[in-house]
Amino acid sequence: MKIEHLLVVGVGLIGGSLALALRRAGVVNRVSGLGRSRENLERALALGVIDDIASGSACARDADVVFLGVPVGAMETVLASLAPHIAERAVVTDGGSTKRGPISAARAALGPGFARFVPGHPIAGSEKSGAEAARADLFDNHRVLLTPQAETAADAVDLVIWMWRQAGASVTTMGAADHDRVLGLTSHLPHLLAFTLVDFIARRADAESCFDLAAGGFFDFTRIASSDPVMWRDISIDNADTLSAAVGEFIGALEQVRAMVGEGRGAELESLFRHARDARDRVVDQRRRTGS
Amino acid sequence: MKIEHLLVVGVGLIGGSLALALRRAGVVNRVSGLGRSRENLERALALGVIDDIASGSACARDADVVFLGVPVGAMETVLASLAPHIAERAVVTDGGSTKRGPISAARAALGPGFARFVPGHPIAGSEKSGAEAARADLFDNHRVLLTPQAETAADAVDLVIWMWRQAGASVTTMGAADHDRVLGLTSHLPHLLAFTLVDFIARRADAESCFDLAAGGFFDFTRIASSDPVMWRDISIDNADTLSAAVGEFIGALEQVRAMVGEGRGAELESLFRHARDARDRVVDQRRRTGS
Repeated sequence: MKIEHLLVVGVGLIGGSLALALRRAGVVNRVSGLGRSRENLERALALGVIDDIASGSACARDADVVFLGVPVGAMETVLASLAPHIAERAVVTDGGSTKRGPISAARAALGPGFARFVPGHPIAGSEKSGAEAARADLFDNHRVLLTPQAETAADAVDLVIWMWRQAGASVTTMGAADHDRVLGLTSHLPHLLAFTLVDFIARRADAESCFDLAAGGFFDFTRIASSDPVMWRDISIDNADTLSAAVGEFIGALEQVRAMVGEGRGAELESLFRHARDARDRVVDQRRRTGS
Repeated sequence: MKIEHLLVVGVGLIGGSLALALRRAGVVNRVSGLGRSRENLERALALGVIDDIASGSACARDADVVFLGVPVGAMETVLASLAPHIAERAVVTDGGSTKRGPISAARAALGPGFARFVPGHPIAGSEKSGAEAARADLFDNHRVLLTPQAETAADAVDLVIWMWRQAGASVTTMGAADHDRVLGLTSHLPHLLAFTLVDFIARRADAESCFDLAAGGFFDFTRIASSDPVMWRDISIDNADTLSAAVGEFIGALEQVRAMVGEGRGAELESLFRHARDARDRVVDQRRRTGS
């Protein structure tokens, strides 16, 4: 089995890495790249991530698989421009970090073709972006979440499952709302906290001495604050209901911890810290044992 | 120049690493270890971190340098029990992550000997703890902050500066309140956020699927939540005024971000994310260039 022609729209970290991973597996014959930045596409071509630069949306007609590696806020526009050109047999899938938004966009843009749209989200990434960040091994031992809808054709889902496995990932299917809730907590909320903390410190009069004396823990904690601002703007807006609720609940938890600190309730703080440490250590141990 | 006899009280990550680093430099003849956990001291002995296990506080009388590597909440008790035995010539210094608390404890316990107490804080660490976490290179290219007081003897400060340089670190002196404010923002606040986030997720009914689907970014962000609960309880309580104010201000910043998310104010979110990313990238670049 082979993909004759893959069109990657948005040849960044995710789209570019998918192309490289499928090449590594020898399961793709031709990869075309489409995107807004000519400079990025030229780099992708020079790096061998893509075979050619697509000349416009119309080139979608030759593609067997269309992969959307664009920020979730761009899905609607991109799908609307591609839709008239996508072949009936083609499978369209995405790598968006939220799933309800891309699903709505695809439903609106693709019409009956929505049955061949498989919503997906590879749980792999890096704070780096652009074609030069692409790596063939990005998805090795990582999960990809698919959130197929009632209308989604089974053979389209099977193809996308097969594709991600060839790329080194393991695939899980789940509901789109569950996806957005869970990822809202473990990914979107931490990103928001990291961005907010760095911004909060950077705005202070003593920002320079703060950054100067920051230790390794600070840089690990804030690594995700070096992520792409547009991508994270779109994720935050697309998952606004879940994320806003999660931030509200987290503020409640933080108010409680603040009261423990302010009132010197050391035993409660210690117990909370211990609970957190034990929970994290358990998950880390488990992952180490299963090699994931 | 050489330290004839170093007494390390609390042979954990910091105290143990200091002993190993000074041995590596060949500037210490004998290291004794004192601590509450016999098991940890036996391990420290077996690993060659210390030469002998001190039999009690009275052994402080032979020490030229006493290093306190205990949680900041234990400083008062430890100093009170050592104080009657410390030689007049000896220099006492600590590695506590807050400075105002240890300074008060030393001022109360040491009497005129307070002049030979040099408050210190090596900005190096790990989420690991105990003698087995000790490494000779822990302080290489790291900063040590000293916060000497008006009473502190210049020759005691000079000795401690020399000692840390021999251990591979660079030394900066600053005010104790400045130290606690800056570290409250860049270290204590992030630790509190990481502990609170992991606890917050672990308490949810869907905690298992949250942890199951968490990506690498989550584990980097929460690495500091695997830190020692007692150490962080003590830091939080000792720096309560600063930390509580910082958490309050951070909640204010988070409320603003939450409103941007809830009201779909994408341009403001993007600008905040970009400001944070640029600030972090600038600091990371600068450190890379200076090799620190």
